[in-house]
Amino acid sequence: MQARPKEYRYKVGVIWESERRGFLNAAGKPAIRVATPPEFKGHEGVWTPEDLFVAAQATCFMMTFLGTAAHRGLRFEAFEAEAEGTLARPDGQFLFTEIAIKARVALPPDGDRALAREVIGFAEKDCLITHSIVSRVRVEPTILVLKNHAAPAA
Amino acid sequence: MQARPKEYRYKVGVIWESERRGFLNAAGKPAIRVATPPEFKGHEGVWTPEDLFVAAQATCFMMTFLGTAAHRGLRFEAFEAEAEGTLARPDGQFLFTEIAIKARVALPPDGDRALAREVIGFAEKDCLITHSIVSRVRVEPTILVLKNHAAPAA
Repeated sequence: MQARPKEYRYKVGVIWESERRGFLNAAGKPAIRVATPPEFKGHEGVWTPEDLFVAAQATCFMMTFLGTAAHRGLRFEAFEAEAEGTLARPDGQFLFTEIAIKARVALPPDGDRALAREVIGFAEKDCLITHSIVSRVRVEPTILVLKNHAAPAA
Repeated sequence: MQARPKEYRYKVGVIWESERRGFLNAAGKPAIRVATPPEFKGHEGVWTPEDLFVAAQATCFMMTFLGTAAHRGLRFEAFEAEAEGTLARPDGQFLFTEIAIKARVALPPDGDRALAREVIGFAEKDCLITHSIVSRVRVEPTILVLKNHAAPAA
């Protein structure tokens, strides 16, 4: 059996287009338009560094949930989450102090609520982006048990 | 004059699609397909949390460069950067220990090399994502002075 590598590398490129906007690239992946947000003299309707930071945490939370659910045998019907990052300057310079995540999981009628909570708790703590940032991360989960597979309970 | 707000909020959503992939959303912005990377049992050719983390830093570096260049009156013809994040587990759990950025700026024939270095140095230190992460960030700049506006010097 081969040992798991100790390190992985992730590479992206950015290229300036005009004013405060440009493109974000990664080999073999679709390019993404990026810009400074309007509140910092930038542009509307374009992904920003601030969005991407919160997105890294939100997607890592989801992927850790999915991996842990597979590993632990949690059956679920749907998963979604909303993440809100707070950019503040407690000591004069801006940084993300907190990311609040609202997670919603829908389980089948015979679903295991306790296991779902456990998997969400693991995803909250063990995400590799959580380990890489100084922001406090907190997760507020909602677990729905579906009445049948066709219509989610309100 | 109105005081600058002390806080800004950035919100994104994620929604599971199938296996270890889903969509990343933000109001008024194009949706992005996201997945776990292949080395963690995921999928090829899709943006991952790891990519987005490195992307947040790379785009913040570019936007800070652009804002500072405008503020300091640096004239430049082109800007691009490549960022490589190292995911390692020095103490047993994975985190991004370092992001290395190679930045290239092209200046007009009468461009100010010293000012360009200063602006890059500021972007290296003062980016708000740099303040929000535990990873060491280092920037290796290359400054080209164009011989004329049509053809960059090799």
